[in-house]
Order: sequence, then C-alpha cells, then structure tokens
Amino acid sequence: MGRVITFLTDFGSFYLSQMKGVILQRTKDVVFVEISTDIPPQDVRSGAFALMVASRYFPRGTIHIAVVDPGVGTERAAICVESGGHVFIGPDNGILMPAAYALGSPVAWVLDVPEGASPTFHGRDVFAPAAAEIACGTHPEDMGIPFEPKDLDLGSPRVVANGVETTVIHIDNFGNVVLNMKSVPDSDMRLMGRRLKRVRTYGEAGWNESLITLGSHGFAEIAVNGGSAAKLFGLSTGDKIVLEDVSCSE
Amino acid sequence: MGRVITFLTDFGSFYLSQMKGVILQRTKDVVFVEISTDIPPQDVRSGAFALMVASRYFPRGTIHIAVVDPGVGTERAAICVESGGHVFIGPDNGILMPAAYALGSPVAWVLDVPEGASPTFHGRDVFAPAAAEIACGTHPEDMGIPFEPKDLDLGSPRVVANGVETTVIHIDNFGNVVLNMKSVPDSDMRLMGRRLKRVRTYGEAGWNESLITLGSHGFAEIAVNGGSAAKLFGLSTGDKIVLEDVSCSE
Amino acid sequence: MGRVITFLTDFGSFYLSQMKGVILQRTKDVVFVEISTDIPPQDVRSGAFALMVASRYFPRGTIHIAVVDPGVGTERAAICVESGGHVFIGPDNGILMPAAYALGSPVAWVLDVPEGASPTFHGRDVFAPAAAEIACGTHPEDMGIPFEPKDLDLGSPRVVANGVETTVIHIDNFGNVVLNMKSVPDSDMRLMGRRLKRVRTYGEAGWNESLITLGSHGFAEIAVNGGSAAKLFGLSTGDKIVLEDVSCSE
Repeated sequence: MGRVITFLTDFGSFYLSQMKGVILQRTKDVVFVEISTDIPPQDVRSGAFALMVASRYFPRGTIHIAVVDPGVGTERAAICVESGGHVFIGPDNGILMPAAYALGSPVAWVLDVPEGASPTFHGRDVFAPAAAEIACGTHPEDMGIPFEPKDLDLGSPRVVANGVETTVIHIDNFGNVVLNMKSVPDSDMRLMGRRLKRVRTYGEAGWNESLITLGSHGFAEIAVNGGSAAKLFGLSTGDKIVLEDVSCSE
Repeated sequence: MGRVITFLTDFGSFYLSQMKGVILQRTKDVVFVEISTDIPPQDVRSGAFALMVASRYFPRGTIHIAVVDPGVGTERAAICVESGGHVFIGPDNGILMPAAYALGSPVAWVLDVPEGASPTFHGRDVFAPAAAEIACGTHPEDMGIPFEPKDLDLGSPRVVANGVETTVIHIDNFGNVVLNMKSVPDSDMRLMGRRLKRVRTYGEAGWNESLITLGSHGFAEIAVNGGSAAKLFGLSTGDKIVLEDVSCSE
Repeated sequence: MGRVITFLTDFGSFYLSQMKGVILQRTKDVVFVEISTDIPPQDVRSGAFALMVASRYFPRGTIHIAVVDPGVGTERAAICVESGGHVFIGPDNGILMPAAYALGSPVAWVLDVPEGASPTFHGRDVFAPAAAEIACGTHPEDMGIPFEPKDLDLGSPRVVANGVETTVIHIDNFGNVVLNMKSVPDSDMRLMGRRLKRVRTYGEAGWNESLITLGSHGFAEIAVNGGSAAKLFGLSTGDKIVLEDVSCSE
C-alpha cells in the first residue's frame, strides 16, 4: 500500500481537490487524510499547532503538506523538511517547524518553483507536485539545496504578578480554547472573574461550568461543559490572557 | 481491498485525523468515509439518526465509529456492537443502537480503556485502536466481555387534540427539518400558522413555499423550496413541534 | 489501482456518505475526492464554475459526480457526459457542461431513473449507481440513449459607459470574489469607490488593501489582503457589479 499524504490548509475543499488531482495524475497509490481544511484564514500559528499535534499519530513515511501561506508568490521560499521519518512540505513561514522539531532533528531543502506556477496557489503548482515526486520514491534530499528554515515559536506562559500570562494557540469545533501551556496550574485559577474548575475531563464539571484540563494534545485547555469557552470569554487565536491565581487575591 | 471504516463525530477534521493516523499506523488497507464531522456538539440523538440512515448503505463488513461523547472519561463504557454483518464502535450512550437495530439483532461487547488513554479523547485512544484491531481480523467477540448496551429511543409522534406532536431529530445543510415520523400525514397540516404543502419532491412546491415530504431517509421532512425551514420556523434538533391538522380548525 | 471519483455537492457529508456507501457496495477499487461539499445551496452556476476549474487537474478516466440539483424528482433528465477522457454524471441543468466543454467535445447520454429511486435524492439512487457501473467497466455509451444536454453560460463581461459590467461566479473560503472575466483589465479600476490595486499576488497589496488579480483558476478575482472582499463589498454569487475605469472619471 502507498504513502500516506496529509493536508492542512485554510482554504477548503475546492482548492484542496486540485492539489489531490495533481498528485493522482502522478500516482494513485496514496492515502489522503485531511488534518484540517479550516484553519482560520492565514493563521500560521494555529496551523503549526494543529500540524504538530496531529502529525505524530501518523506512520513513519507520511508526507504532510501544510498550506497556510499569506506570503504565497512573494520571495518566501517553498521548502521540504524531513524529521523522524516524516516529510513536511509547505511555505517557509514556520508552519512546519514545531511539528518537525517534535518528531526529531529537522533537515530542510528548498523547492524549485516551476516556471508558470500560479503566484497565488503554490499548494497546487509547487507543493503537490513535490509531494507526488516524493511519494513516487524521490528522496527529499534530491528535491533541492539544503536550507535553513524559519522557526516559529508557540511561546511559553509567563508568570506575572497575579498569575500566569498565556496565549491562545488553537480553538476547536466545540469552542475549547487551547493555551500554550503544557500543564494545568496546581492552584485554582480564575479567568475574567470566573473560577476555572480543574478537572480530568469535561463531565467532571457541572453543566455550563467553566473548567481547565490537560487536553488530549498535551496542552492546557479551557472549556465549558456543554458550551463554548471561546464564545463565553470572547477569545480568538493569538489572544493573550491572564489566568489569575485565586490564592493571590484571597 | 480492505475494510471500509466510517466516522461520525461532532468534532471536525483536526481530531478525526488523529484517529485516522492511529488506524493507518496499524494498516493502510482501509477505505475511510466520513458520515459526518459536524453533528451539533454533543447531540447524541442527531448523531444516532444520521448513523442509522447512512450505515445501511454501506457494504457488510463495514466498521462504523461514532463519537458524540459528552460522557468521555467518566464511567460510561466504551463498546463494540455487531449487527447484520456491520460493526459499530463508540460510547455506550445509545448513539450506535438505532443503527444496529435497523440492521439486525445487535450483540455487544465492552472495550478495554488502555492505561494512559486521554480522558478527553477516547476516539483516538480507545475507539480507533479497536477499529484497527477489527480491521486486521480480530472478531468483535474477542474484543471484550459481553455487554448490555444503553438504548436510545428516537421517539414517535403523538396524536394531540389539534394534530400531531413530533420531535426534530435532524437538520440538514439546507435547513430541512427531519421529524421522528415515518410517514407524511394524509391530511393537510399547518406549522405555526403556515400551511405545509404535501409533495413528493421540493420542486413541486412554489418558490419559498413551505412543504412536507417523505425524505430520502424514510422520515417526514419539513422544507422550504429554495430556503431554510430551520431558519423560517426557528427550529433546532430536539425541539418538539405540533403539526396542526387543518381540518380540525376549519 | 482503481478509478478516481470526485464529488461536488451543496449538501454536506451526511448525504454524500450514502452515495459513497452505494459505490463501495459495488467496488472498493476507487479513490474518492471531494471537490466541494459546500457549494451555496442550489447555486448551479457556482457549482459549474468549481467543477470546470477543478476537473481539469484530475487524470483521464476520472468520474465526476456533481449534484446541485434544485429540480430533483421533477422531469429534468439525469445524464452522463463524456469529454476528453473524463466522465461527468449529474442532473441536466447545465452544471456539468462548462467542465465538459473545457476538456473536449462532450457527448451525452440520458440515465435511467430506477423504479423506487427517492424523488428527493438522485445522488444516491441514480448518480452513484451509474458511477459505480462505469467504475466497474461499463462504457458511458452503454448507460443510456444519446441526449442533447442543457448548456450553462457563465457569461462574459460587458463594456459599459464607465467601465466593465461583470458577474460574481464564485466566492472562496477567504471571501475572494471570482468574476466571469478571463483577464484583469489593463487600466486601474475602482469598485464601489475603492481603488483595486492590480497585483500578481495578494502579498503585493498593503494590509487590508483591496486588489484585483488573475486567480489560480484563470479568472479575475477581487480580494482584500488579509481580509474578505465578499464581506467588504457585500457580494454574493450571481451579483452583477461594475468595475469603474478610473481613467473615465478623472
């Protein structure tokens, strides 16, 4: 059976299908999986987080194409990165790197942009052909010259006077708010005046109660049991929030 | 060719892709089909309806994973059900049972929850590994001890003084409103003062006219030709409505 | 490896999965790709555009099923069209024809509607079985009698006193507005008082600046760098707009 190819984009199935068609013209011996087609438009950080979390569940040899690409057609490079037996393909804006670092020691190469490639859609004209080439057996190191890719830092929480300052890095379909914190604080926290119940899983909070838990992705997550934390607290990806330590104010 | 595995969830592609990755680590000899990734959050009834309608169109041997799971990580069991040559995997909250009963005489087993499974994502850590195991040839009866699963009743319409009381069990992308009634009433009906034209298909109603028809799923469906009945009547799944018999009031 | 089958619909995955199930009952030797499952409800023109753009990137032999079908169950015919080695299956409302003409010289046949087909869902009961039949080796010309399909004209821009009148034929996930114009005007244009910067790619405009570019699909596209042109200008598919030639008014 063939190579697994995953896709992560902010542009929906219409454009994605063209990428799949280009690959299928070259080989049908592939398994396509969509990690996401609805990353918030041009939100490279949110895409980088989703790719980092999801890619580790795929088998070695998987090719991951990630296209959240506000700089398409400008001088930003198109790259291919190998790490831990996985291959990552996409723009050099950092979207690939948290995933690549999570799996091993990344090595990168720059991809050629073919004459006639659309300046607005490298997904179809640069990244998909490169993925097809690799799926057919070409080694990433034969795809281009070595390259030092841009990194992307998901950041870390910062201790402040009354608690911890942290950044929203992802919001899922339930409105659960994922933070750039790899653990849940040991003490009781409050957000915008609301106590966050520390729980193992959503059902341990009361109905409509706000909670904080260690999400399945390994990051702290604020949720509302049966509701949307993003809506309740008015949060979007990129927002900085302060989790107030309840003991500080009592 | 391999086993067909279907997915029905309320959580979008980011989490779903992790389930697919887990299965692909075990075997690539599978065909993935998404029945739905956008069941309304935690709406077990709507998920049960969709699974019941769609599963019957798949070949014998198909494995259906359904994860609308408000009780994840609590004491609710994880189960595997066989019926009519299909296998259903998911939480023991009734979501699997209308589908399983529609296909035959269900037999169920309880699944182990592996040490270290995320308490918030059994889809990835319990259900996907079980599906992979079965796709690789393990018989469902070797997956765990026999179990008596919770049932879920989609309910039935109830005759009331001025007509019929019925429940909304699904709303589709057009805003068509599916009711828990397996036939369209013989007499003319009104909903919230609006006459519902009884038709075979949408195009038999006038533009923007409200109608009732027997949907392709075998249930009565209220629609607006060229519009959204859910929006016009302000309906959500779970709502109880009364279809007024026009002859009662004339 | 098997036949590629693409899907383009306005009805989401719940109904689509039933079509896939019907095909998989017949053969698993297929690769499914979704061109779109979220064409605006009953917007045949938008579907025709998307199919025309995407289908050309697929290999010869691909079967494309397109179901945006406001006339389902009425007297409109179900058809199968061959062109340039691709097969198109869907309702006779023109949705298939721009794609078929773009690939070659279309030849069409009318499909039987089986006894018992749901009058509201030919996708599952007419088009999917026909696709499965063709995927298993039946030639399109053996599917039914020759037929003269309805055409659909995406229209052309029209020169008016102060500029060019053109029609919105597609709006993508970013809110980029695609026009039925195959080139970008040579002179500077204004839309609703706003100058549209003529660029090769989005990043050449300033942040939040309105622009016009030749999209990856070969049609002129109005966009806002980092924003949604559809929202800014309040546009939907089918809208007619006038691009004002700046030199006319200066």
